[in-house]
Amino acid sequence: MSEPKVTIADVAREAGVSKGLVSFALNDRPGVSAESRVRILEIAERLGWTPSLRARSLSTRRSFALGLVIARDPEVLGSDPFFPSFIAGVETVLAPQGLALVLSVVPDEKTEMRTYRSLVSDGRVDGVFLSDLRHNDPRIPLLQELGLPAVTIGRPDTESPFPCISVDDTPGVAETVRYLVSLGHRRIAHVAGSPALLHGSRRRAAFDTALREAGLPAGQSIETDFSVAAGADAARRLLTQDSPPTAIVFANDPMAIAGLGVAHELGLRVPDDVSITGFDDIDFTRYVYPALTTVRTAPSDWGRAAGRTLLDLMALGTAPDVDLPAGRLVIRGSAGTPLRP
Amino acid sequence: MSEPKVTIADVAREAGVSKGLVSFALNDRPGVSAESRVRILEIAERLGWTPSLRARSLSTRRSFALGLVIARDPEVLGSDPFFPSFIAGVETVLAPQGLALVLSVVPDEKTEMRTYRSLVSDGRVDGVFLSDLRHNDPRIPLLQELGLPAVTIGRPDTESPFPCISVDDTPGVAETVRYLVSLGHRRIAHVAGSPALLHGSRRRAAFDTALREAGLPAGQSIETDFSVAAGADAARRLLTQDSPPTAIVFANDPMAIAGLGVAHELGLRVPDDVSITGFDDIDFTRYVYPALTTVRTAPSDWGRAAGRTLLDLMALGTAPDVDLPAGRLVIRGSAGTPLRP
Repeated sequence: MSEPKVTIADVAREAGVSKGLVSFALNDRPGVSAESRVRILEIAERLGWTPSLRARSLSTRRSFALGLVIARDPEVLGSDPFFPSFIAGVETVLAPQGLALVLSVVPDEKTEMRTYRSLVSDGRVDGVFLSDLRHNDPRIPLLQELGLPAVTIGRPDTESPFPCISVDDTPGVAETVRYLVSLGHRRIAHVAGSPALLHGSRRRAAFDTALREAGLPAGQSIETDFSVAAGADAARRLLTQDSPPTAIVFANDPMAIAGLGVAHELGLRVPDDVSITGFDDIDFTRYVYPALTTVRTAPSDWGRAAGRTLLDLMALGTAPDVDLPAGRLVIRGSAGTPLRP
Repeated sequence: MSEPKVTIADVAREAGVSKGLVSFALNDRPGVSAESRVRILEIAERLGWTPSLRARSLSTRRSFALGLVIARDPEVLGSDPFFPSFIAGVETVLAPQGLALVLSVVPDEKTEMRTYRSLVSDGRVDGVFLSDLRHNDPRIPLLQELGLPAVTIGRPDTESPFPCISVDDTPGVAETVRYLVSLGHRRIAHVAGSPALLHGSRRRAAFDTALREAGLPAGQSIETDFSVAAGADAARRLLTQDSPPTAIVFANDPMAIAGLGVAHELGLRVPDDVSITGFDDIDFTRYVYPALTTVRTAPSDWGRAAGRTLLDLMALGTAPDVDLPAGRLVIRGSAGTPLRP
């Protein structure tokens, strides 16, 4: 099964530097300029050099693993493809470097804080990805106190010493609302995600702003926990009112798909009686009927960017923030001109 | 943030044995009977004892981590809730023991084999979960050669030294076919998963057998890669024929949901014109319209059983196979009496 292995000597030859310098760069030792280090790491990656972990562990105190702690209900986790796609993106960066991903799924925030502490005290990981950012997120000062390098997935609302990978959700939500208004919708409702999560409250704020900018009065808005079940409940509440909205903007696709189901169950035609839009463009959206108008985001791109940034941070001590392109509206059949505006 | 920590002394008091014996049991040292060891581990778990990893690492050569290597296309991974739910189940067992889960998502089988080798040579994991079993699975002899304890998720079709956690898919598929036949269906088709995966070919075989037992001729069957896109393609092929089936049994829920969408898109009524069934009972099935008739399985129970079995195997050197209860048919609106049998 074994193949000819790329050695440090191969990398040194390609880079035109000494083996010692390559070793120093790969082992994160002082005496190598940031530019040389980056160049050597790139050449090593291109040649397919894989580290001998035991050899590296002898001279460093690193674990060569990165951590991801997810505090979500298993049920919500199961119906939201964000994490599998994000993790697949992270792995495309980690695997070629011989780095492992240590994953913890925890039931609540208290366990989450304890998990970060033991990841550090056990020397399990050299850095972590911080996702599902919350308001005044207590994990940021904790990780700072623990001295653990981190990359935040999304922009925190407080001071943070860590690089962040962010995508602005506002343009996608605004584009959705403008599109619905252009089709003639005036009664547009929002099914928001959890207000405790930054991306939940940001999508909600973007919705409110977009309605205001269109000269419309504030729309109805229902808060949920982002789950499919909560999306279905919210859709039922909205659509069984005396004067139901003609369009519903859902804060994620799983809830929007549940909303489609509820509309059909109530005997409403989509989009004639009610238009429905989502957020994320998960795989299912193209295959439900009518196919879902939604905002395309790219969780695996997030994973890749987060992986690269965390590696740079650990190798160089610093890494810049990354702004990924904002999601764009993908127009499909679930939104159209209202029959009775 | 720290809480009063349960110590080995607490466990010893509760178990009525010496601290030394508890330490021996928890550190997997000889001189403790299997029965005592299991009892001490159970008491330690119940009291919420968490190991000090550094202390244990001094006296053992273990990494206190378990591995899961997934070789799947990121897109398929993103739309199949099996792994997030399975992992959530595994974590409920690992987390209280202070064990980590090391996750690798790899693009192909060659990388997969290499990944197992480096997990061992790097001393990353003490055991692994082997999922997505294939025919004559080459990973079984590899793990045997590497001396890595493993638990197989599903029953292998070859000799295996490892305990397996299995669920028989046959009764669920048979129950589905019998139910459709009782409703009056005679032209029943199957959209199968990948024949390279054991659970794909087993569900297919169960379908063929069930038709035969109902006295019906062999039904149409289309092989897929289990993805939503392939499920939609298969449904379109089946439903645009001159004499389309009146019912389609899909080998997983994501494909069945795509099948519902295709039927609607073609202007067919579900279940009047075509009945559709799935397999797994993922969260979405209750919220599409009509809600999906499917077979309920419990990936998080698999995860829990697999976690417990792998821990027992590592602690005691042996662990029995576990047969989980077979999935049962969940009857909802997507299957009914055919209007034109």
